[in-house]
Amino acid sequence: MTKWVRYQANGRIGFGTLEADTIAEHEGDLFASPKPTGKTLPLGAVKLLPPCVPSKMVALWNNFHALAAKLNVPRPPEPLYLLKSNNSFLAPNETIRQPKAYGGKVAFEGELGIVIGKRVSGCSEEDAPQYIFGYTCVNDVTASEIIQKDPTFPQWVRSKGYDTFGPFGPVIATGLDPYQLTVRTILNGQERQHYPVSDMIFGPYQLVALISRDITLEPGDIIACGTSVGVGSMKPGSTIEVEIDGIGTLTNRFE
Amino acid sequence: MTKWVRYQANGRIGFGTLEADTIAEHEGDLFASPKPTGKTLPLGAVKLLPPCVPSKMVALWNNFHALAAKLNVPRPPEPLYLLKSNNSFLAPNETIRQPKAYGGKVAFEGELGIVIGKRVSGCSEEDAPQYIFGYTCVNDVTASEIIQKDPTFPQWVRSKGYDTFGPFGPVIATGLDPYQLTVRTILNGQERQHYPVSDMIFGPYQLVALISRDITLEPGDIIACGTSVGVGSMKPGSTIEVEIDGIGTLTNRFE
Repeated sequence: MTKWVRYQANGRIGFGTLEADTIAEHEGDLFASPKPTGKTLPLGAVKLLPPCVPSKMVALWNNFHALAAKLNVPRPPEPLYLLKSNNSFLAPNETIRQPKAYGGKVAFEGELGIVIGKRVSGCSEEDAPQYIFGYTCVNDVTASEIIQKDPTFPQWVRSKGYDTFGPFGPVIATGLDPYQLTVRTILNGQERQHYPVSDMIFGPYQLVALISRDITLEPGDIIACGTSVGVGSMKPGSTIEVEIDGIGTLTNRFE
Repeated sequence: MTKWVRYQANGRIGFGTLEADTIAEHEGDLFASPKPTGKTLPLGAVKLLPPCVPSKMVALWNNFHALAAKLNVPRPPEPLYLLKSNNSFLAPNETIRQPKAYGGKVAFEGELGIVIGKRVSGCSEEDAPQYIFGYTCVNDVTASEIIQKDPTFPQWVRSKGYDTFGPFGPVIATGLDPYQLTVRTILNGQERQHYPVSDMIFGPYQLVALISRDITLEPGDIIACGTSVGVGSMKPGSTIEVEIDGIGTLTNRFE
């Protein structure tokens, strides 16, 4: 298992593998056999960036049996998804901001993120793992009062696309079995979500197979797999953490 | 008024200004005072590409009085929008493809596209023009039977985000007054849409001001301003053209 980070240090952007608190700098393309440079940096000496630069983030709705039961919505026959704006992407430890033109509730949604490693346009569920680079934590931040504000047009993209509403990281972890993972979300030190990936309606490999039939997925693209029960809203000044064993903890403040 | 094209020629990607059938090659950044190289190419010797590389395309729904009246939907109090997938982007003269996993109707929607020139995050309607680089033609291709297929979640992003569903071009034209423009859509030689931009509910400057309050807009980003009456579906083998005087004609086939 390898954990990849991207960072800024001494005015330059770099990336590398993280072991304990030491980064082994690499060069080349993260998705095309990058090589170690031999240099190391202490984690404390860098500013973490989002661990990759997605060309898009596809986000699922209604993808957990437990949440579907709670909301009393049927299991969808196909994945239901939207796109998060690229300007929503946010680094670990950075601040999620209340939008300028929206004063309503802002909710956290802890999710597993699939990071694509190779261009894929329609593949079988069996072949999906070879197109997956690794996994990360995603907070699918949502302006919950926007979604159904207009009765003629549910505003999924807008409610989830505001600047800073798409934190992910802190690392991309490779070599994991995603079906064994558990997602926890912690608001101000208190656990609010704790659910197994195995409760997904469409599991990670199925999502890659089905979504890539519609839209070609590129290296670095992320599928945010949807959330389960326990979603809630954040007060200004809150600290929100999304934690997945084997990946780590994505921490952000909300102001 | 200047018309910018992007193209592939002799295995290289280039860009420049188009006058009659001659391209004056430029170098540098399209959005940061590019310089002419002094070289020219005949238009016939290049393969046109989408005239810029957007980091995102925001697409409006219900933004024309005439279409709102026909659909009997109220004028929305705020712009209603979604994101087109970046993998939907398609060059002039390339082929729009029926999706692999969808055999239903595919509709054309001729639209004006606003091309952003400078990063903007919330501006007044008065200041909006300084953030606009120019205008292009967009075909907001839509798998119309997907939108309301699932009663729990209107699939706007999916229906409009399939690979090849976002052709734009053939040029970006600068120095136009967008409020004077007329959009025409021609299917197999027959005019199907013909509507004035002045009928927009939220005009181009308002769109830049309002959308950029939610999502920072980057140079090259496109706002597809929504369509009006006359939308219809295409049979395989069709030729579809979106024409705006002062910009030109975006031509694609559908298969």
